[in-house]
Amino acid sequence: MARDLIDACCPPLLSAALSQADADALAATFKALGDPVRLQLLSLIAAAPGGTACSCDLEEPVGKSQPTVSHHLAVLADAGLITKVKLGRWVNCTVVPERLAELRSALVT
Amino acid sequence: MARDLIDACCPPLLSAALSQADADALAATFKALGDPVRLQLLSLIAAAPGGTACSCDLEEPVGKSQPTVSHHLAVLADAGLITKVKLGRWVNCTVVPERLAELRSALVT
Repeated sequence: MARDLIDACCPPLLSAALSQADADALAATFKALGDPVRLQLLSLIAAAPGGTACSCDLEEPVGKSQPTVSHHLAVLADAGLITKVKLGRWVNCTVVPERLAELRSALVT
Repeated sequence: MARDLIDACCPPLLSAALSQADADALAATFKALGDPVRLQLLSLIAAAPGGTACSCDLEEPVGKSQPTVSHHLAVLADAGLITKVKLGRWVNCTVVPERLAELRSALVT
């Protein structure tokens, strides 16, 4: 992703006072990361070959039921941190590196 | 801060499955950032001269009362994102760039 696009998507948090709208959008994404089960799911997906994992392989490692995992994956997808492709009763989840790059750029001092 | 210390403090989120303990610690920090008022406070402090601001200068820009601002500053301090020095009824708050660098390193894909 071009640097210009990253800057446009995600205003740096720390170089000037954030507007209310920017603060709302950025806080929603950090809130999605503010849960240990979601962080574990994201790390499992990112560490899988090609950064893609089937939801069927995520329940056992995090010790949660299919509905609970499905809920947390939906929160990660709503925050733009993963994409989901439905495959029968499961979903294939892929990390979105550009979204993580945006968050990193927002945390630059 | 030395790169070794950053890596030791904050295991990369996305290169291997996170342990439960690492996920708990990291999620607590992201949760502290998952609130628009706290993000605005952090950006105001970081944008102030020397990365330090008096809490007396933070209430009006975020439109919140002194007790509310005080609560949010305590959450940011507990997460290691700012340090606080009490000055009478106010506190001087300073951003901790090393903590933000740790979070950035955790988000590297």
